[in-house]
Amino acid sequence: MTFPVVTLLTDFGLRDHFAGVLKGCVLSVCPSAQVADISHEVAAFDILEGAFLLAQSWRYFPVGTVHVVVVDPGVGSSRRPIVAEAGGHLFVAPDNGVLTTLYAEEDPVVRHVTEDRFFHHPVSQTFHGRDIFAPVAGHLAARVAPAELGPVIDDFVRLQIPRPVPQEGGAWTGTILKVDRYGNLITNLRATDFVSNFVVTLSGLTIGTLSKNYAAGLPGKPFLIAGSSGYWEIAVSQSSAARLLNVGVGAILTLQFGNPFQNVR
Amino acid sequence: MTFPVVTLLTDFGLRDHFAGVLKGCVLSVCPSAQVADISHEVAAFDILEGAFLLAQSWRYFPVGTVHVVVVDPGVGSSRRPIVAEAGGHLFVAPDNGVLTTLYAEEDPVVRHVTEDRFFHHPVSQTFHGRDIFAPVAGHLAARVAPAELGPVIDDFVRLQIPRPVPQEGGAWTGTILKVDRYGNLITNLRATDFVSNFVVTLSGLTIGTLSKNYAAGLPGKPFLIAGSSGYWEIAVSQSSAARLLNVGVGAILTLQFGNPFQNVR
Amino acid sequence: MTFPVVTLLTDFGLRDHFAGVLKGCVLSVCPSAQVADISHEVAAFDILEGAFLLAQSWRYFPVGTVHVVVVDPGVGSSRRPIVAEAGGHLFVAPDNGVLTTLYAEEDPVVRHVTEDRFFHHPVSQTFHGRDIFAPVAGHLAARVAPAELGPVIDDFVRLQIPRPVPQEGGAWTGTILKVDRYGNLITNLRATDFVSNFVVTLSGLTIGTLSKNYAAGLPGKPFLIAGSSGYWEIAVSQSSAARLLNVGVGAILTLQFGNPFQNVR
Repeated sequence: MTFPVVTLLTDFGLRDHFAGVLKGCVLSVCPSAQVADISHEVAAFDILEGAFLLAQSWRYFPVGTVHVVVVDPGVGSSRRPIVAEAGGHLFVAPDNGVLTTLYAEEDPVVRHVTEDRFFHHPVSQTFHGRDIFAPVAGHLAARVAPAELGPVIDDFVRLQIPRPVPQEGGAWTGTILKVDRYGNLITNLRATDFVSNFVVTLSGLTIGTLSKNYAAGLPGKPFLIAGSSGYWEIAVSQSSAARLLNVGVGAILTLQFGNPFQNVR
Repeated sequence: MTFPVVTLLTDFGLRDHFAGVLKGCVLSVCPSAQVADISHEVAAFDILEGAFLLAQSWRYFPVGTVHVVVVDPGVGSSRRPIVAEAGGHLFVAPDNGVLTTLYAEEDPVVRHVTEDRFFHHPVSQTFHGRDIFAPVAGHLAARVAPAELGPVIDDFVRLQIPRPVPQEGGAWTGTILKVDRYGNLITNLRATDFVSNFVVTLSGLTIGTLSKNYAAGLPGKPFLIAGSSGYWEIAVSQSSAARLLNVGVGAILTLQFGNPFQNVR
Repeated sequence: MTFPVVTLLTDFGLRDHFAGVLKGCVLSVCPSAQVADISHEVAAFDILEGAFLLAQSWRYFPVGTVHVVVVDPGVGSSRRPIVAEAGGHLFVAPDNGVLTTLYAEEDPVVRHVTEDRFFHHPVSQTFHGRDIFAPVAGHLAARVAPAELGPVIDDFVRLQIPRPVPQEGGAWTGTILKVDRYGNLITNLRATDFVSNFVVTLSGLTIGTLSKNYAAGLPGKPFLIAGSSGYWEIAVSQSSAARLLNVGVGAILTLQFGNPFQNVR
């Protein structure tokens, strides 16, 4: 006996009934499913933040997991519901770019979900999580084949992920992708692309100190750390770099090579 | 093999151990139960908000689901624990009106839970979620019959749900039932009762524009939309109507017929 | 067939991918596990608050439950990962004192987890919840014996739990351990140690009124109540004692015997 996993990743928040209703819709279709929340606290309407959280989490679930990703400011408009297959996982989402990070790393088969017999009827104009995405995920968990849902498409929406930009003199500009719960600033500089011997300037402060862990930094002194996300982060030991530097998502930083890291430890 | 679903809907919040402990109590009695959070972020002590969230969610779970609903400012006082049966679902709650929306729509059999052998002992005066409601839900999930829990009662507490009130000249007054995560204002005007050709005045602003979805509105312009809850909502595209109009739950609105809707799309 | 329960108690918050990823890591190792959140909203880096929430919750889960407790400001430093066994439950955590309340009440067997074949590789320096604690919990849920994980240790980290301190003249000083969601102030005075006939002075106010439940107090008047946690609490009916008295965790109170309780009811 198997217990198919269905994850939920939305901007629905936790104060309303929205996230709970999704679970009911999945379980009504597939009673043996295990529903696991990834997060419902994606910032409202922030498609790129949803895409970032998806990139950070889906691979840690078992092969066969169905991921429901709903950040959907265009609910009820003409944007399509889609199902993507990649790496043995399935993804159910609106076609608005919320799977952008998946497209960047994998080569998924993407389908437009047209078979409305897998929907919950009547389909509202404003809550497709309940009426389309969760029921479709339930059917996929119950082993309906993706091919039954609709035709393959290749014109799905890809969003621009902010990339580091080379500047004159060997410098780069980057940006803050995400501020995590602890106030760590996650940049868009991959630790495998920018390996060593640089400083980062952000909010007027130049940071060239490296730490291997959050605990090792000096009190109140921001440092660079290769984060678990695969990106360089700017952090402060047991404090919030976002608050200290007064910056948030979208802030621009500059990277300059040729400065050996100062190692905290 | 079946996996009975037990939902949790409380005002316990997520910072404390309360919600987690409920899960333990259910699973200790019924290890094969699937526990699904609906929300733990009902406003503290807000019985009517709990009733609203219940109305919006319970039907989307499978028949046989046991719903634990605990918004319980009178915990430890003489208010009774009850179990209600309706539509093939079971509801465990304090008898303080938190099941009011269920009574309004269904004709449930309600029992006073008197058989304390189904409780967790010792029973505290302050955490009946842990000591009474979750253990009783666990026993119901494990297929104890409701009739074993106690006698049927018919004097259970029904609260007044704010209804639209007719005014002179064919106008109505209504109220805001709920503000959702996106700042959409959910009114108490059912879309099946108030079908078309009206304007709503709220906070000095008259709104007569209709939209089929949240995305279609003009920036900064509030519109009417028939929400997934079954009620008319006042919304602003990709923004918060609550913030724009500076109103919240309980705000009074006026509806006036005879004004054809302006359709956004 | 059994469904081993794995609980999660962290300071990861709910806005990021961290808590969701833990679930994936557990389910990838043990697909039949039931993952239950206790809380992810422990204050960032607050090891003692994590220990308090653990003490309040673990016993309510079934024997055999695996509890993952991650409040880990020293992640990536030399602090050890440990597994503790007590009362038929298992606990996976960093060795930083977050299991302190367990050590105070039980006599657990504690092991240093040295067998890195149970980890997720590569092991990052900054997210041991994902790479060490959740995978180890998955293996324990899948019935790997704790003895396979590493050697027994007895020099694990115990933190000082704030205890009531006797003063001259029979008085005691205590402290506020926790403020719950409703603003109730949970003291470190056990109801079994301090039974009756005392007043508590806090923030300039002397409180000698007892209530058996939260509902019975007079509006705006703080009272003493023996809470479900086993400790005396200071509460205000349907309001926040923390806000009224303007105090929080760590506030010092004085207890003076010889004053018969005034009973609210």
